[in-house]
Amino acid sequence: MVDELIHHDPSERGFASDNYAGVHPEVLAAIARANGGHVTSYGADPYTAAAQEVFRSHFGEQAQVFFVFNGTGANVVSLQAMTQRWDAVICAETAHINTDECGAPEKIAGLKLLTVPTPDGKLTPELVDGQAFGWGDEHRAQPRAVSITQSTELGTLYTADEIAAITSHAHARGMFVHLDGARIANAAAALDAPLRAFTTDAGVDVISFGGTKNGLMFGEAIVVLNPDAVNGVLFLRKAAMQLASKMRFVGAQFETLLSSDLWLRSARHSNAMAQRLARAVRDIPGVTVTREVQANAVFAILPREVTTRLQEQFHFYVWNEHTGEVRWMCAFDTTEQDIDDFAEAVRKEMSRGE
Amino acid sequence: MVDELIHHDPSERGFASDNYAGVHPEVLAAIARANGGHVTSYGADPYTAAAQEVFRSHFGEQAQVFFVFNGTGANVVSLQAMTQRWDAVICAETAHINTDECGAPEKIAGLKLLTVPTPDGKLTPELVDGQAFGWGDEHRAQPRAVSITQSTELGTLYTADEIAAITSHAHARGMFVHLDGARIANAAAALDAPLRAFTTDAGVDVISFGGTKNGLMFGEAIVVLNPDAVNGVLFLRKAAMQLASKMRFVGAQFETLLSSDLWLRSARHSNAMAQRLARAVRDIPGVTVTREVQANAVFAILPREVTTRLQEQFHFYVWNEHTGEVRWMCAFDTTEQDIDDFAEAVRKEMSRGE
Amino acid sequence: MVDELIHHDPSERGFASDNYAGVHPEVLAAIARANGGHVTSYGADPYTAAAQEVFRSHFGEQAQVFFVFNGTGANVVSLQAMTQRWDAVICAETAHINTDECGAPEKIAGLKLLTVPTPDGKLTPELVDGQAFGWGDEHRAQPRAVSITQSTELGTLYTADEIAAITSHAHARGMFVHLDGARIANAAAALDAPLRAFTTDAGVDVISFGGTKNGLMFGEAIVVLNPDAVNGVLFLRKAAMQLASKMRFVGAQFETLLSSDLWLRSARHSNAMAQRLARAVRDIPGVTVTREVQANAVFAILPREVTTRLQEQFHFYVWNEHTGEVRWMCAFDTTEQDIDDFAEAVRKEMSRGE
Amino acid sequence: MVDELIHHDPSERGFASDNYAGVHPEVLAAIARANGGHVTSYGADPYTAAAQEVFRSHFGEQAQVFFVFNGTGANVVSLQAMTQRWDAVICAETAHINTDECGAPEKIAGLKLLTVPTPDGKLTPELVDGQAFGWGDEHRAQPRAVSITQSTELGTLYTADEIAAITSHAHARGMFVHLDGARIANAAAALDAPLRAFTTDAGVDVISFGGTKNGLMFGEAIVVLNPDAVNGVLFLRKAAMQLASKMRFVGAQFETLLSSDLWLRSARHSNAMAQRLARAVRDIPGVTVTREVQANAVFAILPREVTTRLQEQFHFYVWNEHTGEVRWMCAFDTTEQDIDDFAEAVRKEMSRGE
Repeated sequence: MVDELIHHDPSERGFASDNYAGVHPEVLAAIARANGGHVTSYGADPYTAAAQEVFRSHFGEQAQVFFVFNGTGANVVSLQAMTQRWDAVICAETAHINTDECGAPEKIAGLKLLTVPTPDGKLTPELVDGQAFGWGDEHRAQPRAVSITQSTELGTLYTADEIAAITSHAHARGMFVHLDGARIANAAAALDAPLRAFTTDAGVDVISFGGTKNGLMFGEAIVVLNPDAVNGVLFLRKAAMQLASKMRFVGAQFETLLSSDLWLRSARHSNAMAQRLARAVRDIPGVTVTREVQANAVFAILPREVTTRLQEQFHFYVWNEHTGEVRWMCAFDTTEQDIDDFAEAVRKEMSRGE
Repeated sequence: MVDELIHHDPSERGFASDNYAGVHPEVLAAIARANGGHVTSYGADPYTAAAQEVFRSHFGEQAQVFFVFNGTGANVVSLQAMTQRWDAVICAETAHINTDECGAPEKIAGLKLLTVPTPDGKLTPELVDGQAFGWGDEHRAQPRAVSITQSTELGTLYTADEIAAITSHAHARGMFVHLDGARIANAAAALDAPLRAFTTDAGVDVISFGGTKNGLMFGEAIVVLNPDAVNGVLFLRKAAMQLASKMRFVGAQFETLLSSDLWLRSARHSNAMAQRLARAVRDIPGVTVTREVQANAVFAILPREVTTRLQEQFHFYVWNEHTGEVRWMCAFDTTEQDIDDFAEAVRKEMSRGE
Repeated sequence: MVDELIHHDPSERGFASDNYAGVHPEVLAAIARANGGHVTSYGADPYTAAAQEVFRSHFGEQAQVFFVFNGTGANVVSLQAMTQRWDAVICAETAHINTDECGAPEKIAGLKLLTVPTPDGKLTPELVDGQAFGWGDEHRAQPRAVSITQSTELGTLYTADEIAAITSHAHARGMFVHLDGARIANAAAALDAPLRAFTTDAGVDVISFGGTKNGLMFGEAIVVLNPDAVNGVLFLRKAAMQLASKMRFVGAQFETLLSSDLWLRSARHSNAMAQRLARAVRDIPGVTVTREVQANAVFAILPREVTTRLQEQFHFYVWNEHTGEVRWMCAFDTTEQDIDDFAEAVRKEMSRGE
Repeated sequence: MVDELIHHDPSERGFASDNYAGVHPEVLAAIARANGGHVTSYGADPYTAAAQEVFRSHFGEQAQVFFVFNGTGANVVSLQAMTQRWDAVICAETAHINTDECGAPEKIAGLKLLTVPTPDGKLTPELVDGQAFGWGDEHRAQPRAVSITQSTELGTLYTADEIAAITSHAHARGMFVHLDGARIANAAAALDAPLRAFTTDAGVDVISFGGTKNGLMFGEAIVVLNPDAVNGVLFLRKAAMQLASKMRFVGAQFETLLSSDLWLRSARHSNAMAQRLARAVRDIPGVTVTREVQANAVFAILPREVTTRLQEQFHFYVWNEHTGEVRWMCAFDTTEQDIDDFAEAVRKEMSRGE
C-alpha cells in the first residue's frame, strides 16, 4: 500500500539544480518535532521565535527576521520594503530577479530594474555607477537599492571587501544594499568566513536568506540587518501572499539548519563536490570549464552532441543556448560516487566524439 | 538534545483557528515517503502528477490543477487568471479576499472588489445584481468574476442548488464564478455530497482548494474546472511568487489527503466537534449561538468579561469587537474531551457572572 | 473653409454634465496670452509659478500645488502620495473614486477602498468608524486616508464644521484627509465662504482641485495643504502619466480662473441655475426632487416614459436605473432661458403622461 | 491689466526641447472654433470623430484611434493593450519608455522591459533576438511586444524597410510591434514618405502618435493599425487616467494638424532647421556633431566650459554627463535667424576657448 505511494527512485540524483534535491533528514526530523498540538499561526509561535533568535546569533542582535515561502518572495518583499513606489533597483543583468522571476519585481512591486552587464555576475562600485544617477529628476525612476547575489548566479563569489566597497559606495549615494542569498551558505563555506563577515560587517542592509537550496523543504528568510533600510515588512509580506499560516514549520527547519553546523556542513559538501567535478572534467580534451568554480556550480562548454547524449543519462541544463555552455549544480546530497560516475560519463561521451 | 528543540506542548489545543493545528500524521508520512533523491523541481515531478490525477478523479477529467503556497495565493492567482486588467470581482463584504488579505487582490492583481452586504456570508443572484452592471461603460471596472466562499467565513453553507443558481446567473451575464474553498472539505462533509456535486456539477469555474486548514503543512490548489475561464495560470503563479521549487512535497500531501478518505474523515470530525460544542453551550444561560452551525465554526455572543476570562485559559478570537461575538473553530485534531472541557469552562465562567 | 471645421452647434446646451460645456472665454484668452516663444517645459515656467502663487493666496503660504491632467489623475496621485503600499482609503460608496474611475485607484495605485454606505454622499466621523479599525493587523490593508467629496457626487455639501469634525477624527487615528474638489468652487459659492474656510482651516490635508468642470479646457490641481501628509508627489505624478510637458497652458488657465472672481462667478451662476431648475420643476405633479439642491446638480424622479421623451430633446443621464432617478447638471454657461425651456418641456411631457 | 498676465517673452526661443515651444496658431484657432455650446464628453463628440476620420485617411480604414493626454500615456496604454499581465516588451536601452518615464511602464502596467544596447537608438532583428526567447518558460516574462521609436531618441531614422524587417521578424515569433511616434511627423518629413509607408505598410501594429512636439497644446493618439494586436483600449485608457472629459479640444487640434499639410510643414521646417544648425557648427574647430542628423535633433560634443557659457545665453541640455555630449532640438517655430544667432554664439564661445 505504502509502496504504491512512492513514485520516484530515491537513489537517483543529477546535476540540474540544488532544488532537485529533497529535504535533509535532520530538517525532516525537526518538522516532525514541531508537529502536534496547537500553536499560534502566522508566526507568533515558539519555533518562529527560536529561529529568529538563531538568526540573531549569526547576524547580530539588531537583525529582524521574517520568514517567507520562496526566494522570489524574499527578494520582492525585501526590495519593496527598501523602496518607495517611484524607486528603482540596480542589479546585474544576470541577477535572478532580472532573469528568472517572470517579472515579479516589476509586476508585483512596480520596481524598475536598472541592469548592468557584468563579466562574472558581480557588481562593482564602477558598474553600479553606470546606473546610479538621476536622483531628483522626476523623469527617472530613482535608484534606491543595489541588489547583489552571493554566491552569484554564475557560481562566483564576492569577498567581504568587495561587498563592503559596494555598500559604502551605495550608502554614500543614499542607496541601500540587498543581498540575494539563495546560496549564501555556499558563499560562507567557500569564503571560510562567518555569515556576518560579508553581510552585517560589510554593511549589507537586507538579506534574502536561502534555505530551500540548502536542504529545507521550503522557506526563506528576509533578514533585515539595518532596520532603517526598510518599512512595513509585515504588511508587505502579507500583501505579497508570502505569510505562511503554519509558520512553525518554517521556523523549525531554520532553527535546525542554523543552530548546529548543518548549514555549513551541507554547503561545504556541495562546494567540495563542485570542486571535485571541476577537477575531474577540466582535463578532458574538448571540455572547457568556463568560470571560476567558487561555490557549488560548475559551468562548462562541451560539444552539443555530447551534451545531448549526457542529458539522456543525467539531468542538467544548458545555460546558454548560443554558446552551448552548460551548468552542473551540486547539492547537499551529491556523493563522491555521483561525481565520479558523471565525470566518467563525460569522459566517455567526449571520447565518442561529436 | 532533541528535547531542547521541542518548544511547545503537543497536548495543547484551542479554538482559535483550524490553522493553529499541525500536520496530520498521515500527511507527514507522505512527505517522508516523497523525500530522498532528486526529482525535477517546479512541478514536473511524479508526486505533483499523481496529485493532479487524484484531483481529476474528484472533479472530472477536464480539471487542471496548479499548486500554490497559501490561500491568498490561490485566490489572487485564480482571480487574475479569470480577469483582464480592467475587470472587477463581485464578492460578499465578509469574503476573506475582502477582509483578511491586506488588500492583496487590489495590490497584487489590481482587482477592484465590488462588495455586497449579506446576512449570512452568502451571495445570491439578487445580491450579485447589486453590483452586476455597467458592462461596456469604461468608467466602471468591469464585473467579470463572482467569488463565493464554501463553507463561508461565517460557518454557513451553500447548497449545490444555491451555487448552481449563482453560476447560471453569472454565466448568463458573461461572468465566471470562483469558489474560495479554504474549507471546502468541511462543506462536502456537511452536505454529505461528493466534492463535484457543488462545484463541477454546479457550474463553478475555478476553485481555490484548501489543504492547510484540513491537516496539510502548507499548500493549496487552484483547480480549474472550466479551462475557458482562465488564461496564463502558469505564468501568473510564478509572477505571483507562488511557485514552489520542491513541489513534490505539496503533491505528496495532497495525494495522501485526497486519494483515501482522509480529507473527508478529518472534515467530518471537525464538523462534528463544532456540532458538539454548539450543543454543549447553546443552553447555557447568557450564551447565544449567533449563526447556524453548518461546518466547523461556532459563533456565539457572551459577556465580554466571560470572554476575557475564557481567553486566559483557551485560545480563541473575538470576531466582532462591536457586538462581542466570538468565533470558536474546530480542527481535525480537536477531541471530544477538548470540547467537553471547554464547554464546562464556559458554563463555569458564565455562572461566575460578569 | 473654416466653417467646414465647425462640427457642432455652439448654441446647444443640455443638462448631462458640467463637462459637456466648453472653455470659458476668459480662460481661452489666457491660453492665447501664454502662447508664443519658448518656456521651460514640465512646470518650470512662469505661468505655472504664477498659478501656484495664486493658489497660495487662497489656501495659505504652506500650500504646494501640482498640476495634473484630470480629476482621476489628481485623486489617484494624491492618494498615492498620502499612503504606503499597504494602506487603504476610506470613502463613501458613492465616491467618484469608487464608482467612476474604472478601478484606477486599485489598478494604478494598488489602493484598497474601504467603502461606507451613506444617506447623502457624505461621511461623518461615525460612518468613518465603520471602516477605521485594524491598524497593526497585517491581515488588513491599513486605513490611512479618508477621502471626502465637496460638493458631493449627489450634489450635497459639507459645512466647514462637518469637515473639521471628520479631519480631527481622522487625525486622531493617524489618518489624513483628502478632499475630492472636482466641484469645489460650487461648494465655496454655495457656502458663501472662502475656499480655505472648509479646507485649510478645517484641517484638510490634500485637495484635488477641479478646474475642468468650472470652465477650464483641461487641468486639475493637487493642492497639498499639509506637506507632512504626502511624499514623492513629483515622482508619483510623472509615473502616473500626469505630467504635462507644456504645463504653461494649465498654469495660465488656473491663474485666470483664480486670480479674479471668475471661479466664483461661474460657480455661483451654475448653482443659481440649479436652484432655478429645482424651483421650476418641484411643483410639477409627478416630479420628485430627491435630494437637497446645494450645488449645481438637481436629482429627480419622474416617470421613465417622460424621461425617455425628454432625452430625445435634451442631454441628461439616468443616475439610477433601478429607481429611475435622473441627474440634471448646470454649467457656467447654462442660461436662464435654458432652464426655463427645459422646465417647460418637463411640464409639457409630464402633462402628456406616461 | 492683460499685460500683467503675460509672464514670458514671446520672442525667446531656445534649443532645449520641441516641447518648450507653444501652440501653432492654426491649432489655437481650431481650439477656439470647437468651443462654445455643449457636446458629449469623453470622446463621443464630432471633433473626436472628425479627427479619427482624418487619421484613417492617413493610416487606412482599419485604424482605430484613441486620444490620450501625453506620450507616456500613449505608450503605456498601448503596451498594456498589446500584452497580458505576464508579458514583456523588448526595446532599445535608449528608448524613452526605458529612460524618461519614471518607470511608468513597470509601475503602472507591470511591464518588464527587456532592453538592448544599440549603436544608434535603432533595433534590428538581430538585436531583438538578444531578448526574444523563453516563450513558454514560466520563469521568464514573456516577450510579446517590440517597441521602436521613430524618429529615435538619438535623432536617427528607420527606413520603411528596416521597420518591415523588424515587424516580420517579430510577427514570426508571435510578437507585436509598437512604434513610439512622439516625433513621427519629423520622420515622415525626413523620409519624404507618407505616414503609412513606414507604419501600416511596414507591418506596425500600434502607434503612439505624437502631437505635442509638433505644435499641439496637449494630446497624443494611440493609433491601432492592427485591431488583433490589442484588447480593452477603452478601459485601459480610462483606468490609466488618460481619458479627457472635454476631448473635443484634442480632436479639434489633431483634425487641424492632419487634415491639411500643417503636420508636414511644421516637421519639415524643424528638420530643416536642424540641418541648417548642423551645417553651421560642423566646421567649427572643436565641435563634433556626433550623430547623423536625420530629424530635428543635433547632437554634438564640445568643451564643457563652452557648453556652460552657451547655456547662459540659450536653453539646451547636456545629453550625456560623461562625454559632454549636448542635444539641440529644433521646433516648428525655430527661425533661420535663431539658428544663425546660435551658430554664431557657438563659434564665438569656441574661439574664446575653454
